[in-house]
Amino acid sequence: MVKIPVVREILEVNDRIAEENRAIFRENGVFVLNLMSSPGAGKTSLLERTIDALHEEIRMGVIEGDIQTSIDAIRISKKGVPAVQINTDDACHLDGNMIRAAFDSLDLKALDLLIIENVGNLVCPAEFDTGENHKVVILSVPEGDDKPAKYPLMFHEASVLLVNKIDLLPYIDCSIDVIKDTSLKINPNLEIFEVSCKTQEGLSKWYDWLRQKVHDFKKGSSEG
Amino acid sequence: MVKIPVVREILEVNDRIAEENRAIFRENGVFVLNLMSSPGAGKTSLLERTIDALHEEIRMGVIEGDIQTSIDAIRISKKGVPAVQINTDDACHLDGNMIRAAFDSLDLKALDLLIIENVGNLVCPAEFDTGENHKVVILSVPEGDDKPAKYPLMFHEASVLLVNKIDLLPYIDCSIDVIKDTSLKINPNLEIFEVSCKTQEGLSKWYDWLRQKVHDFKKGSSEG
Repeated sequence: MVKIPVVREILEVNDRIAEENRAIFRENGVFVLNLMSSPGAGKTSLLERTIDALHEEIRMGVIEGDIQTSIDAIRISKKGVPAVQINTDDACHLDGNMIRAAFDSLDLKALDLLIIENVGNLVCPAEFDTGENHKVVILSVPEGDDKPAKYPLMFHEASVLLVNKIDLLPYIDCSIDVIKDTSLKINPNLEIFEVSCKTQEGLSKWYDWLRQKVHDFKKGSSEG
Repeated sequence: MVKIPVVREILEVNDRIAEENRAIFRENGVFVLNLMSSPGAGKTSLLERTIDALHEEIRMGVIEGDIQTSIDAIRISKKGVPAVQINTDDACHLDGNMIRAAFDSLDLKALDLLIIENVGNLVCPAEFDTGENHKVVILSVPEGDDKPAKYPLMFHEASVLLVNKIDLLPYIDCSIDVIKDTSLKINPNLEIFEVSCKTQEGLSKWYDWLRQKVHDFKKGSSEG
């Protein structure tokens, strides 16, 4: 009985903190993405590929959210970009406060792009604004083509959907058309890229989107 | 600041309701499993296979937990066993109260085995007792072998781990040995079965485990 009002209050407080984060990011000229998916859909692999492709032209940093362990932050820091690990200690999502706590460990002025890798969870992270410019969701094809219908909030909130692991399509029952049709019904403005982080197929369009977005943001910041 | 005590209170209330559910299940002679995994790891496929294999010897029922849609309950009811759909309406897990609300729609006296399919989420469902006898977790190999380390509570709470989609092992980078070693470090009593719901490889050992557990439970119930 008490649960719903409490959750609402938490969300309202979070929204306020996230707005403050957003203002701080803007002042520092940092474009921010909040990267979300089920466990194992390929968030860290996408980050590794993206860093390799773009780190010479875009100054990137990463915040890694995990319940426990620093497995992902270690993978990312091997790529030579600043990475901060947040251990959520049983919490199933990142929130605005946790991101704020990472500011001390990040030189925001030295970044053009910050990517926040959220906890692997297709449900709760979609509810919590962190102050990002865009939410990005990855769905890997082995998860099945019914996932947008079953977890609609995530697909509604995201600006970009990366359909990952398309190299596995010959071995599984999954229709990309069903994923696209269902996702676009939930969110007609969703940008969809079909990719394989393993073979690198399709990633160049994602890099182009990201390059353009950072460029437009920096232009807007310098003009504003 | 207020979040942790509130969550604790919710968990305590839930534990009490779950204990009441457990007593009701026991009185009715129903053995109960709480089936959990990431989205798309194969919970519904496992249920379909298990119903096909065992429904002539064990009277089965299913509670389907989903945020929205009845996709899974429709799949299950095609198999000819009683299925109740719970839509959690944005909640990321089932709890004791939601299971209690399904009792009106289930003839518990007519069941030997009730399987609760939880919301697809490797985090939150592990925290909420529903009144089950055992928690069962499915990890599909495309999710990667680092998942037990990264989501340890789920593997700590479960009695059984089904490592699913082993037919995909030739096409991905995933070590079953790493999954087993890490899981057993977290939970030395975990029973592990390597299976493919697609090819049916390995499922007979899972059926044997389930058959034995239901048998022992019914024996204990009739003696008690």
